[in-house]
Amino acid sequence: MRMVDIIARKRDGKELTSEEIQFFIEGYTQGKIPDYQASALAMAIYFQDMSEQERADLTMAMVNSGETIDLSAIEGIKVDKHSTGGVGDTTTLVLAPLVAALDVPVAKMSGRGLGHTGGTIDKLESIAGFDVEISKEQFVDLVNRQKIAVIGQTGNLTPADKKLYALRDVTATVNSIPLIASSIMSKKIAAGSDAIVLDVKTGAGAFMKTPEDARELAQAMVRIGNRVGRKTMAVISDMSQPLGQAIGNALEVQEAIDTLRGRGPKDLEELCLALGRQMVFLAGKASSLEEAEEKLREAISNGKALQKFKEFIANQGGDASVVDHPERLPQAPFHIEVPARASGKVTEMVADEIGTAAMLLGAGRATKESEIDLAVGLMLNKKIGDTVKQGESLATIHANTEQVDDVIQKLYASITIAAEGKAPALVLDIVTG
Amino acid sequence: MRMVDIIARKRDGKELTSEEIQFFIEGYTQGKIPDYQASALAMAIYFQDMSEQERADLTMAMVNSGETIDLSAIEGIKVDKHSTGGVGDTTTLVLAPLVAALDVPVAKMSGRGLGHTGGTIDKLESIAGFDVEISKEQFVDLVNRQKIAVIGQTGNLTPADKKLYALRDVTATVNSIPLIASSIMSKKIAAGSDAIVLDVKTGAGAFMKTPEDARELAQAMVRIGNRVGRKTMAVISDMSQPLGQAIGNALEVQEAIDTLRGRGPKDLEELCLALGRQMVFLAGKASSLEEAEEKLREAISNGKALQKFKEFIANQGGDASVVDHPERLPQAPFHIEVPARASGKVTEMVADEIGTAAMLLGAGRATKESEIDLAVGLMLNKKIGDTVKQGESLATIHANTEQVDDVIQKLYASITIAAEGKAPALVLDIVTG
Repeated sequence: MRMVDIIARKRDGKELTSEEIQFFIEGYTQGKIPDYQASALAMAIYFQDMSEQERADLTMAMVNSGETIDLSAIEGIKVDKHSTGGVGDTTTLVLAPLVAALDVPVAKMSGRGLGHTGGTIDKLESIAGFDVEISKEQFVDLVNRQKIAVIGQTGNLTPADKKLYALRDVTATVNSIPLIASSIMSKKIAAGSDAIVLDVKTGAGAFMKTPEDARELAQAMVRIGNRVGRKTMAVISDMSQPLGQAIGNALEVQEAIDTLRGRGPKDLEELCLALGRQMVFLAGKASSLEEAEEKLREAISNGKALQKFKEFIANQGGDASVVDHPERLPQAPFHIEVPARASGKVTEMVADEIGTAAMLLGAGRATKESEIDLAVGLMLNKKIGDTVKQGESLATIHANTEQVDDVIQKLYASITIAAEGKAPALVLDIVTG
Repeated sequence: MRMVDIIARKRDGKELTSEEIQFFIEGYTQGKIPDYQASALAMAIYFQDMSEQERADLTMAMVNSGETIDLSAIEGIKVDKHSTGGVGDTTTLVLAPLVAALDVPVAKMSGRGLGHTGGTIDKLESIAGFDVEISKEQFVDLVNRQKIAVIGQTGNLTPADKKLYALRDVTATVNSIPLIASSIMSKKIAAGSDAIVLDVKTGAGAFMKTPEDARELAQAMVRIGNRVGRKTMAVISDMSQPLGQAIGNALEVQEAIDTLRGRGPKDLEELCLALGRQMVFLAGKASSLEEAEEKLREAISNGKALQKFKEFIANQGGDASVVDHPERLPQAPFHIEVPARASGKVTEMVADEIGTAAMLLGAGRATKESEIDLAVGLMLNKKIGDTVKQGESLATIHANTEQVDDVIQKLYASITIAAEGKAPALVLDIVTG
C-alpha cells in the first residue's frame, strides 16, 4: 500500500477502505507518513467528502491511535455530553448534577477554555478548593458512589487527531464536515462513555455559521456514533447570541446554581432540558424523552439537583457553601453598567464579539498560556427581542479595573437596537439518526 | 501575508493575486513555506483550477525562482521546440538542422531520456565524438555563425519547479493542467528563447491520454506563453503508436538522416513539417504558415537541410561522415524479426508498451542511473492501418543478445491484428491562441 495511491483514490472520489484509512492513520501517527501527504489527503477529503463508513473508519482509527479510557468499572450506561463550543455556555455545570440526581452516571473529562469559549474546568475552579486533578481510582469510585465526578484531561488520547488537527489548522482544511465530525467523535469515544449527547451550536458565536451546516455536522456525528456502537443524539442550538446571561467563570457558576434552583435564565434552562432529556433517555432512566423531561423538572423543583451539586463540590474538595452563599465566589471589585444609547428592541448581540469582550476583561484565554481572572465577566441584562429604553443597562461589566472603555466599545459594536426584533428560536432541531 | 490564507482563498475558488503567488513560490523555494502547505495548495489548485493570469503569474514566479539563460547575444528570433514526450520521437533531430537551414537560430538546451521516452542528447551521443558539454560562449558563437547548437542542461533553472514537481509526484497532484502547463512553460521561458513551438502528444504513449486533455494543456501553455510575451503555438499529435519506425538512439539518428533526405517515414515527416512551419513562421522567416512549409520542403529537396546536419555534427566534434555512411553508427550484433502470427490489418500498436520493450533491450533508462546501449532498439516494419500477412515481419529487434523472448512477448502483447483497421490521424489540431 502506498500513501500516494490512497491520496489519488480520494482525489478521484473513490471510497477508501478500512485498511487504507488505518494505514494512513497508523503511518501518520508513527511519523512514517509525512505531513505533506496528510495535508494533500485532507484537502482531497475537503473536496470529495467521505462516506459514512469512511467517517466511522477514520474515527475508530484515530481512537485506536492512542490510549482509551476504560469506564467499565462504573455501573450503568455512561452518557457524555459534548458541546461544539459557544459563549456563556453554562450547560455542563447545570446538566452534570441534574442528570446525576436521576442516577445517570456522569464521568466527565473536561478541558480548559480557549479564545472566546469558556472551559468547564476553569468554571469549577472558581469554587475555592475544587480539584479536578484526582486519580482515576478516585474518579471511578466517586461516580459509582455519587454518580458524578469531573477529571482533567488525562492520558495520550487520540494522538492522531491531535497531530492531524494541528496540520489542518495551518493548511486550510479545518472546515470539513467528515474531518470535524471524526475529530470530535474520536475524542468522545476514546473518553469511554457508552452514549453521547451532542450540542451543536450555530450562529455568529459558533464554528458552524448556518443551521444547515450545523445539521450536517450533527447528523455526521450521530451516524458515526451509532455506526460504531455508541448511542448518539444531538441538539442543534442557536449561538447567534450568548447563552443565558452570565459570561465569565464565577458568574457562570452562580448562574448554574440559579438554574438548578429553577430561577435561571429561560434559554439556559430550555437547552439544559433539551440535552438532559436525551441524556436521561439514553441512560435508560426514562422510557421516553417526555418522561425524561418530567423527571428533570421534578429534580429541579424538589431540590435534588441542587443537593447533588453541593455533594459534587464537596466530593472534590470544594467549598459547597457557595451554593447558598454565592457572595463567597470570587467577586470583581468594579461593576460598570453599559447604558443603552437608544430605545427600541434588541435585534442583535453578536455572540463571538461579546465573548471576545469578556476575554478582554480577563475572563478567557487569548493563548493557552494566558492567566485568567475567575471573577471578571459580563452579565447581559437584555437579550435579543427584549424591549430597552435609552439609558437602561444592556449589560453589567464585572471588572478588576475601571478602565474598560475598549470593552464598552466592543459591546456597543456588538449590540444592535432597532424598532422591531424578536427572540430567535433556541433549539432549532433534534437529530437522532 | 500568511500561506494558510492563500490556501484557503484558492480552496474557496478565489483568484490569487500576483503577490500571493510570488509569496508562495519565493517562500517555498527558500524553505520558509513547508511542503505540507505547498501540497495542500497544489491539491486545492487541482480542484479549483487557476485563471489564465494565475497560470502566467505562477510560471513567471517559477522562472524568477532561479537562474535564466540570456540568449540576447544571439541575433534573430530564437525559437524553441518542446515535446511533452513520446516514443520514437525523432522530430528534434530533424527539425533542428531543417529550420537552421532556413536561418532560424536554434539554440537548444536538451536533456537525457527517462523511462520509455528518449532524450535528444542520448541520440546525438550515438554519433562518435559528438559533445554537448560545450561552454556557453561556444554555444552562443556557434548559433550566431552556424544557426545551430545543442547544449546539455546547465545552471540552476527553475528550482521552484523542481521542488514542486517532486512534491506533486508523491501527493497525487501531478495531473493538473495549470500545474503541468506552468511547469513546462517555466522551464522553456527560463531557457531564454523568444518563441516556443509545442508538440503536445496524446494517446497511450503520452501523458495526456485523450485529445481533449491534450488540447486543454496545449491551450493553457500557448496562452501562458503569449501572456508573458513569448510567441507560442502548439500542435496536438497522436502518440497512440510510436512516431516513425525507429525506437533507439542510433536507429533514430539514421531515421533523422533519412527524413532530412526526404526518404523518412511519412508520419515523422508530416509532424516535422507541422512543427517546422510554426517555428519558421514565428522566427519571421516566412509571412505565412504555407510559405514556411514550402521553404521547409525546398530545404529538404535541395539538400540544404542535410548539409546543415553535417555542419552541426562537425561543429560539436562529431563524425559527420555518418550522414553518408550510416553503417558507421553503433550497430547491434543481432537482428531478430518478429513475424506476424495472423494476417489482416494492424489495428493497435500500444506506444508506451513498445517504448518499454525498447527499454528492456537497453535503449532507455529505467532509472536516472541506468546505463544505456546506443545501438539497440526496434524498427517497426508495420504501423497501424498497414496490411500484414502471417509470417511477415512486424518489427526488427536490434539487440546485443539473442535472448529477447521477453521483448518479443511484449511486442506481441502490444500489437493487435484484426480484419479492419486504418491509420490514425497524426496531426489532430493546431493551437495558436
